[in-house]
Amino acid sequence: MSQLEPDDLVAARKKIAEKIVTTPVMRSDAIDGLLGCRVAFKCEQLQVTGSFKFRGASHAVSLLEDSCQGVATHSSGNHGAALARAARERGLPAHVVMPESAVKLKVDAVRRNGGTVHFCAPTQEAREAGLQAWVEQGFEAIPPYDDDRIIAGQGSCALELIEQVSDLDVIIAPVGGGGLLAGTALAAARHPHKIEVIGAEPSGADDTARSLAAGYRVTEHQPTTVADGLRALVGERNLALMQRFRVKIITVDENQILRAMGQAWTHLKQVVEPSGAVALAALALAVEADPDGWAGRRVGLILSGGNLDIDPLIDTYRSAMTDR
Amino acid sequence: MSQLEPDDLVAARKKIAEKIVTTPVMRSDAIDGLLGCRVAFKCEQLQVTGSFKFRGASHAVSLLEDSCQGVATHSSGNHGAALARAARERGLPAHVVMPESAVKLKVDAVRRNGGTVHFCAPTQEAREAGLQAWVEQGFEAIPPYDDDRIIAGQGSCALELIEQVSDLDVIIAPVGGGGLLAGTALAAARHPHKIEVIGAEPSGADDTARSLAAGYRVTEHQPTTVADGLRALVGERNLALMQRFRVKIITVDENQILRAMGQAWTHLKQVVEPSGAVALAALALAVEADPDGWAGRRVGLILSGGNLDIDPLIDTYRSAMTDR
Repeated sequence: MSQLEPDDLVAARKKIAEKIVTTPVMRSDAIDGLLGCRVAFKCEQLQVTGSFKFRGASHAVSLLEDSCQGVATHSSGNHGAALARAARERGLPAHVVMPESAVKLKVDAVRRNGGTVHFCAPTQEAREAGLQAWVEQGFEAIPPYDDDRIIAGQGSCALELIEQVSDLDVIIAPVGGGGLLAGTALAAARHPHKIEVIGAEPSGADDTARSLAAGYRVTEHQPTTVADGLRALVGERNLALMQRFRVKIITVDENQILRAMGQAWTHLKQVVEPSGAVALAALALAVEADPDGWAGRRVGLILSGGNLDIDPLIDTYRSAMTDR
Repeated sequence: MSQLEPDDLVAARKKIAEKIVTTPVMRSDAIDGLLGCRVAFKCEQLQVTGSFKFRGASHAVSLLEDSCQGVATHSSGNHGAALARAARERGLPAHVVMPESAVKLKVDAVRRNGGTVHFCAPTQEAREAGLQAWVEQGFEAIPPYDDDRIIAGQGSCALELIEQVSDLDVIIAPVGGGGLLAGTALAAARHPHKIEVIGAEPSGADDTARSLAAGYRVTEHQPTTVADGLRALVGERNLALMQRFRVKIITVDENQILRAMGQAWTHLKQVVEPSGAVALAALALAVEADPDGWAGRRVGLILSGGNLDIDPLIDTYRSAMTDR
């Protein structure tokens, strides 16, 4: 069970203030026009290592004892690179267990940030078993999301957003394991006025939506989604915090995710990975279902990261231009 | 012949200050590591209408007399959209002559910003003839680059950059017609310390390099380059300013341009169009030729725009993911 209270986020944020980037908020008249509401995009693709994950990883590493010999984790990628970077900045080694299906760029990013990659089968069990082996060798486990240190660190993103945009009605964040979403719910709870918090989840990896509906953590989970960062199972602490703060979930299909990704690239000129575009997809779906209810709402939307393999896209572009 | 002096840029900048975005400067440890110098990226893809062109267009429109009935221009796209937007903000119609080969997104952008598109053959002669027809009907021609109002407006980009990064050794800007590059040369000349100015040009559209080498404006020009924004012939005023300020040109091939575009997307998380990546390609080539000479140099690099068709790239991404 999470021991976190909303005010704990303030101390966490102070701990990592020197390490992280206060990411900018961007707006797009074109997207506001399409959706009929006023959207503030929190740009975590511009965070160190290209995703919000560096916030939680930096916080967890900042709390390690000086006797710690190193860290270990499992990750589809962004947490791994973030942890490797945070550990390296403290002079510590990092072992990262990654599914064989991980995006190549994310594997490279772990290595570029000084981490050692260990591949495993693409299942939750294999990931956890892989991590356990390193813990038994004396490395400190820094799980990707089901961890109060991580949740508190991720919450700094919404704390910043709420300061940057003072009049938000709602914040939408993507949910995979739930570190970012639980941290966002805690951050929103500190605000004197009600800010609704909504999680955005791929329908092919909708264990969070199912868990909240069922009232317990649904663990049959074979995620299939283009949003590789959201293929994890929601964490226990994370789910409990979502229940406590009455977070709602909107699920979106693959086409909606890719369309939102294209809109972010086109209108914001920001490279956002599929997971990073899921919140925009959820907003578009919500607006489509209830345009009047959403008209004029002030929406904070977390673009969670921007790490994806660009080379095949450039090759496509080259071919298209050569064929003209 | 251009009547412009460096200090004229200050008045131009003041005229458009309320209209334009002071675009951010971004940095990338990864790119600095690859190149061995310290690069400040001036992010004009985040300018209104997605390119630096809005600076010059806004300036030209700000100088129109109240009796003006409307404006006209020829453009491969970004100037057209920028002029349409600037004209609309003054309540004026804009007629934009575009080559049939123009990127669809750029055609749409002209229309979305309130301009009327007229297609022509993809040659310099056809573009100029198309424009002349509208001028004869009483619309004020706002040429895309060979115009002091435009050059002075584009110069505001480098003025900002020099303020944002006080210790630049060199600025690299792309060159098509030369509005941005000539404006950059004027801006750099205002600085008390020498700032070298380099133009970056596709080798398939290298009329500026050839003109500077020949000492006169080379007009046989059949541009073939993926950098659609740079397919124009360098302007007379623009060339004269480059000669006056001893601007050098680096030419880059198509693969170098596309590789640089991929690097900008990957490391900066910024959607930069091919023309927008040409300056980075030129820097990479210069560093490759003389790594010691460039080591540690402080380089300002103008990412000129971010308008390209994203949909085919998203389709590629979808297919690649479905095939896995």
